[in-house]
Amino acid sequence: MILPGFYIDDIIKTAIREDINYTDTTTDLIISENAHGTARFVAKADGVLCGIEVALRVFNLLDDSFKSTVYKHDGDRLKKGDIIAELEGSTRALLKGERTALNLLQHMSGIATATDLCVQLIKGTKASVTDTRKTLPGLRPLQKYAVTVGGGRNHRFNLSDGAMLKDNHIDAAGGITNAVSAIRKQLGHMVKLEVETRNLDEVREAIHAGADVIMLDNMDCQTMREAVRLTDGRALLEASGGITHDTLRKVAEIGVDIISIGALTHSVKALDISMKIK
Amino acid sequence: MILPGFYIDDIIKTAIREDINYTDTTTDLIISENAHGTARFVAKADGVLCGIEVALRVFNLLDDSFKSTVYKHDGDRLKKGDIIAELEGSTRALLKGERTALNLLQHMSGIATATDLCVQLIKGTKASVTDTRKTLPGLRPLQKYAVTVGGGRNHRFNLSDGAMLKDNHIDAAGGITNAVSAIRKQLGHMVKLEVETRNLDEVREAIHAGADVIMLDNMDCQTMREAVRLTDGRALLEASGGITHDTLRKVAEIGVDIISIGALTHSVKALDISMKIK
Amino acid sequence: MILPGFYIDDIIKTAIREDINYTDTTTDLIISENAHGTARFVAKADGVLCGIEVALRVFNLLDDSFKSTVYKHDGDRLKKGDIIAELEGSTRALLKGERTALNLLQHMSGIATATDLCVQLIKGTKASVTDTRKTLPGLRPLQKYAVTVGGGRNHRFNLSDGAMLKDNHIDAAGGITNAVSAIRKQLGHMVKLEVETRNLDEVREAIHAGADVIMLDNMDCQTMREAVRLTDGRALLEASGGITHDTLRKVAEIGVDIISIGALTHSVKALDISMKIK
Amino acid sequence: MILPGFYIDDIIKTAIREDINYTDTTTDLIISENAHGTARFVAKADGVLCGIEVALRVFNLLDDSFKSTVYKHDGDRLKKGDIIAELEGSTRALLKGERTALNLLQHMSGIATATDLCVQLIKGTKASVTDTRKTLPGLRPLQKYAVTVGGGRNHRFNLSDGAMLKDNHIDAAGGITNAVSAIRKQLGHMVKLEVETRNLDEVREAIHAGADVIMLDNMDCQTMREAVRLTDGRALLEASGGITHDTLRKVAEIGVDIISIGALTHSVKALDISMKIK
Amino acid sequence: MILPGFYIDDIIKTAIREDINYTDTTTDLIISENAHGTARFVAKADGVLCGIEVALRVFNLLDDSFKSTVYKHDGDRLKKGDIIAELEGSTRALLKGERTALNLLQHMSGIATATDLCVQLIKGTKASVTDTRKTLPGLRPLQKYAVTVGGGRNHRFNLSDGAMLKDNHIDAAGGITNAVSAIRKQLGHMVKLEVETRNLDEVREAIHAGADVIMLDNMDCQTMREAVRLTDGRALLEASGGITHDTLRKVAEIGVDIISIGALTHSVKALDISMKIK
Amino acid sequence: MILPGFYIDDIIKTAIREDINYTDTTTDLIISENAHGTARFVAKADGVLCGIEVALRVFNLLDDSFKSTVYKHDGDRLKKGDIIAELEGSTRALLKGERTALNLLQHMSGIATATDLCVQLIKGTKASVTDTRKTLPGLRPLQKYAVTVGGGRNHRFNLSDGAMLKDNHIDAAGGITNAVSAIRKQLGHMVKLEVETRNLDEVREAIHAGADVIMLDNMDCQTMREAVRLTDGRALLEASGGITHDTLRKVAEIGVDIISIGALTHSVKALDISMKIK
Repeated sequence: MILPGFYIDDIIKTAIREDINYTDTTTDLIISENAHGTARFVAKADGVLCGIEVALRVFNLLDDSFKSTVYKHDGDRLKKGDIIAELEGSTRALLKGERTALNLLQHMSGIATATDLCVQLIKGTKASVTDTRKTLPGLRPLQKYAVTVGGGRNHRFNLSDGAMLKDNHIDAAGGITNAVSAIRKQLGHMVKLEVETRNLDEVREAIHAGADVIMLDNMDCQTMREAVRLTDGRALLEASGGITHDTLRKVAEIGVDIISIGALTHSVKALDISMKIK
Repeated sequence: MILPGFYIDDIIKTAIREDINYTDTTTDLIISENAHGTARFVAKADGVLCGIEVALRVFNLLDDSFKSTVYKHDGDRLKKGDIIAELEGSTRALLKGERTALNLLQHMSGIATATDLCVQLIKGTKASVTDTRKTLPGLRPLQKYAVTVGGGRNHRFNLSDGAMLKDNHIDAAGGITNAVSAIRKQLGHMVKLEVETRNLDEVREAIHAGADVIMLDNMDCQTMREAVRLTDGRALLEASGGITHDTLRKVAEIGVDIISIGALTHSVKALDISMKIK
Repeated sequence: MILPGFYIDDIIKTAIREDINYTDTTTDLIISENAHGTARFVAKADGVLCGIEVALRVFNLLDDSFKSTVYKHDGDRLKKGDIIAELEGSTRALLKGERTALNLLQHMSGIATATDLCVQLIKGTKASVTDTRKTLPGLRPLQKYAVTVGGGRNHRFNLSDGAMLKDNHIDAAGGITNAVSAIRKQLGHMVKLEVETRNLDEVREAIHAGADVIMLDNMDCQTMREAVRLTDGRALLEASGGITHDTLRKVAEIGVDIISIGALTHSVKALDISMKIK
Repeated sequence: MILPGFYIDDIIKTAIREDINYTDTTTDLIISENAHGTARFVAKADGVLCGIEVALRVFNLLDDSFKSTVYKHDGDRLKKGDIIAELEGSTRALLKGERTALNLLQHMSGIATATDLCVQLIKGTKASVTDTRKTLPGLRPLQKYAVTVGGGRNHRFNLSDGAMLKDNHIDAAGGITNAVSAIRKQLGHMVKLEVETRNLDEVREAIHAGADVIMLDNMDCQTMREAVRLTDGRALLEASGGITHDTLRKVAEIGVDIISIGALTHSVKALDISMKIK
Repeated sequence: MILPGFYIDDIIKTAIREDINYTDTTTDLIISENAHGTARFVAKADGVLCGIEVALRVFNLLDDSFKSTVYKHDGDRLKKGDIIAELEGSTRALLKGERTALNLLQHMSGIATATDLCVQLIKGTKASVTDTRKTLPGLRPLQKYAVTVGGGRNHRFNLSDGAMLKDNHIDAAGGITNAVSAIRKQLGHMVKLEVETRNLDEVREAIHAGADVIMLDNMDCQTMREAVRLTDGRALLEASGGITHDTLRKVAEIGVDIISIGALTHSVKALDISMKIK
Repeated sequence: MILPGFYIDDIIKTAIREDINYTDTTTDLIISENAHGTARFVAKADGVLCGIEVALRVFNLLDDSFKSTVYKHDGDRLKKGDIIAELEGSTRALLKGERTALNLLQHMSGIATATDLCVQLIKGTKASVTDTRKTLPGLRPLQKYAVTVGGGRNHRFNLSDGAMLKDNHIDAAGGITNAVSAIRKQLGHMVKLEVETRNLDEVREAIHAGADVIMLDNMDCQTMREAVRLTDGRALLEASGGITHDTLRKVAEIGVDIISIGALTHSVKALDISMKIK
């Protein structure tokens, strides 16, 4: 996995601190310290798997002698009933880690599955699906990773690594042209500049000002079509706002480069996956 | 708010570290350090508000001279178009904090709104809606708080503060009776004991063993009705598993005490709230 | 051990940061990096062992190639002179970890020993000895664990996981009956409710209000006896306040269920254990 | 107070995280958010006060609008019944902070009181009482501070800031003379060097080797008297091991400079102080 | 200042923990708790100021009642003897914070001064001076900020927010063209792509492959001149490697866009600034 | 290495968080997860090596299956072209860790090299070179360690572990004699006391007051020579301030014991070391 190992470990420790706190009183009083068991992660719904290494890592942080066999990897499509992985080790640790592992696995797979659905809908067009900064505190790397596993691409990671001129910036600078020229003077040469636009006049001004990317904010299809024509490849175009599964393909066919969807990370439906312990 | 202040601050700092990292390059290069502005949080959909103090706190952590007027409080019902709060202060800080504030506010209000919907559906019955341990890492206190704001109640917070005998525990101890008697000997006297059951025989055994709470796991309505009759108030009954908006009231009318719903926290739909900066 | 491994590691790292800071200047300048040695933990007084895994973990965090043989386990009774464990590894690490290991081991064993003394005193009665929330910052899980190793049981772990109505709560609500009824409406169904009482009238009211547990606060034996009679099993009774080794058995024989003793964790006498390095 | 403010805050936050975790369920459900109250810290036993600023800080971290009047300061002698301080503010915060404030105040005052007792016993001699490295994880600065408040002095704070040659070091170097000469070559010029000795031959060797401080480890009074004569002011002498209240003055009168007592910090008896909330 | 406030606070707390640890034993034993004093930051050499807000913040974290007057701001040129700021408050805190404040101020001003020197050398050319990723652990934001204060621009902040194909990447992908095309498919649309080149053939290939930025790695002036001609504005050109004060202007006049200099942050000479306390 | 392992790990994690943040987008998109490679650390300049274990640890934290062969150890002299170490493992991890490893290795070796240069200059005299408290936040242990690797000695580590009376302390106490006598009463017996002096009268007073160490602050050689004569071994003498490579030997030959040099840690020139990956 591409996420740094200790970032993953920190997330897991945070989760376990919340979920166990002091002791798993039921398990510690009932299950013998030496009891050994096996467990299986099984898909209870169709979707795209994401987070299996994270889920297995939960158990290794509780007890470093776990062994596991992985049948499905991040990015694999799951059918209801598929066995994802099996693991073997301390029964106590299996019971203590179950909820944390599932919470992470279901959330990440939920994002990958939702992203994949969007990606399939626009297949064959030149558009890409991206996430936004509408993520949950502490989980942004996990969530952005899950979007890529689902076939999406990442928008800027944070406010340092991409510049985006919104209406407040533009008003403060006295228009798009002024704003772009002001920021270009000092902006790092590795940082791309996107300009938010609400109508074709703004699109035109953004093109001439030399924006790298132009966001078409809540525009109707007709206007976006005209924007694509006007731009003619001189900047990337990002459609944003109010795009649903019903309109997604239509928007993609207009010829925009990027369709960004906040719901991929702000309104996640967990994918149903279970863990059966024996 | 009942959550400890520094827990809130830590969540916000984590979010800002992810979202700003080094600098908001657009804002810092375009907006003057002394610029002053106002902002409004406005509901873009109907729902129940949760997290307004958290959202406002974001700005105070960025700049401690903010002033705000709050029109709606946690637990208030929102109509689309309602002004929730206004705040005034550094424009830079308004722009830097906007995303973090909205991410938190929309997530928390999403949970409160979904909980409220369930609570309204069972109004007049004796049942309560509760959350589960299916929460997101680092956010459990925020999420559980939002459930109470929406009118729900909290299930156990973690594995230390409530005992629940699941099938693995019961099998290891040789049945419900043995498991309950084994755990009672050492369990703290302030910890309640819940037993998971899958059929009426197990319900009977759990009652006789002296469980405080009995979970009716994925039972049909007919079986739950019989469980209510059998139990006759000697234990609290919790219905769990596969309950949807369509079946929720029917289950509540059977006479169970608790209906626990994982989706309240594992599959949250953000409530649409915007922040308009001037 | 039932405490999460990384909680233990964090405590140990905190201790080592305090105790070593930058370098063990004596050891690093005198002892060769490759020197190898053995050490023995030996009891210098009678008592109950607690924390041997924690003590050994200190050395593994300093150097992961240590080997150890454990002769006594948590909960075992120690006689002065007993060899508890032997370990073998880097002499530098033995010298650097000695103080931290002993500080933890002596403190935890001190708690287990003091608890065991109380438990032995009330043997044969139905009463249990419990701890309180009178613990030292950062050490609560270690301390509560040591109480269970000494044969005691744990009172509530924190203010979230048990409700206790004290006089301030009762006065604010207008009496025990009102307070209990007010809190029951919203309290999680897994949280037990204890009511603090100072006289028999309050005990009566607490019983009728439906308290799960009633604390008999600083009552004399005669009053407690009457409380036991009045309650007749309808609630658990906890004796608390001013109970000494001299009065402990007498209180237990009255028939209360719980005797809570703050001194178990707030006034700990370290058990004398030494570590001999060769 | 001399301890850095954020060290104090970190200790308090750790304590509150343990003690409240998510919410003080009793208080948050019963006491109104706007309720205001007053509280008094009162001595329930004679002793030396330590930690009143720390205790008051607890409440300011929970709610920054507290007001307090302090009648007794760190180092003041307390008589049973003395009012130490009064504070006024949110009743919820008073109830939530009470246990944490008392746990810290009673522990620190317990240490100051025990130290003061020792200091009084040796009044008029040239000896000083010092602590050791036998402290509790995370609490060393608090504990060492309390020793100074009780009139004691601090031994080395950690293994970096003082060198002490123990038997293992001496054996590894081939005797005291070799060990001292080896370490002097590299030891920082601001670091003092102490040598542990078990008999008069070792004392003699340590003097000649040029030790700054010589520890007389578990020696009887006769031997220590001879050591004082032999040393004749050429090094500081520290008596250590097995010194009780009964023997303390006798040891001090021998003429040693330092008497170090581990029990000051490893076996603390909390001083009884209460907090009355109205 | 544009750096997030709590990042600054964390750096300062880390520094103070290292520098004070437990107590400033000299100051706490000699200076009265109530003593009040004033201090002045004075330039002892010519340079560019950076970090004055950070330096003053040190004292506010030690004691929140400090007052200060700032005469010079970040980015101002200093002449030896200039008074930068005056502050007034607790003498103890002045003495405790002095070293930490100066360490930060001198380091940041050292970077700004060195950057400014480079910027002045290339004045009038189109080239910009940038930093690199050759920074010190924990200090990257401070260091990169100081570069901008000195008039430089920032290269990519980290490995997430800019893509750079080095020889290992290019070899693995089978050449520049393959590497660029492979990465473009998945790279976020806000991330710029730079290609490292060592000769004109590679420059040509990078241009045709569509690199946003081309690094001319350790090329001589003649080759760089040819690269500028070949590129003809189709990509930004970055000169890197072995550029000294002597060659800097010559390189800039060739027409490259960016000159990156690792020494700005990896080999910092502190600017001499003193703090005089009265 | 003498630095605690988890201190090193924390520094490295901090560095990697800054340098990678979310993902090394170039490497993760181009280099296969299973690719294996080797790398060599090679000296590009003459100097003294420091930090090779730290540098290698970077890779083990990214992937625990690395293997390495170390040819040069901390303290070894390097000639340009020397191979320092080779390592073999995941190509992705080699590329991700390269910058962090080099940043640490070059900084530490830069300090050791600069220290060694000073040490060589005064060879044969009785003087030692020491560092100061002029270090960078978070890096003090690394920097002080590097000074010892270069043959220098450490001055006090922090304000707790050495007392130094500066002019402000002396003025507040009413002169050197008063200050020394005031502080001696309470100062821990393991803490050495240094007095800063600016002229021979102060030196005389410091000797008579019983200072352990006397700092000769910015004195000319003639004055220092007289100070050495006056002191005649009754205290250690530390020359400090304005000493350059040109004057260093001359100062050492005067007969002072300690020459402290702030630039060793506040103005570090990185030693040029490269890492070649294949």
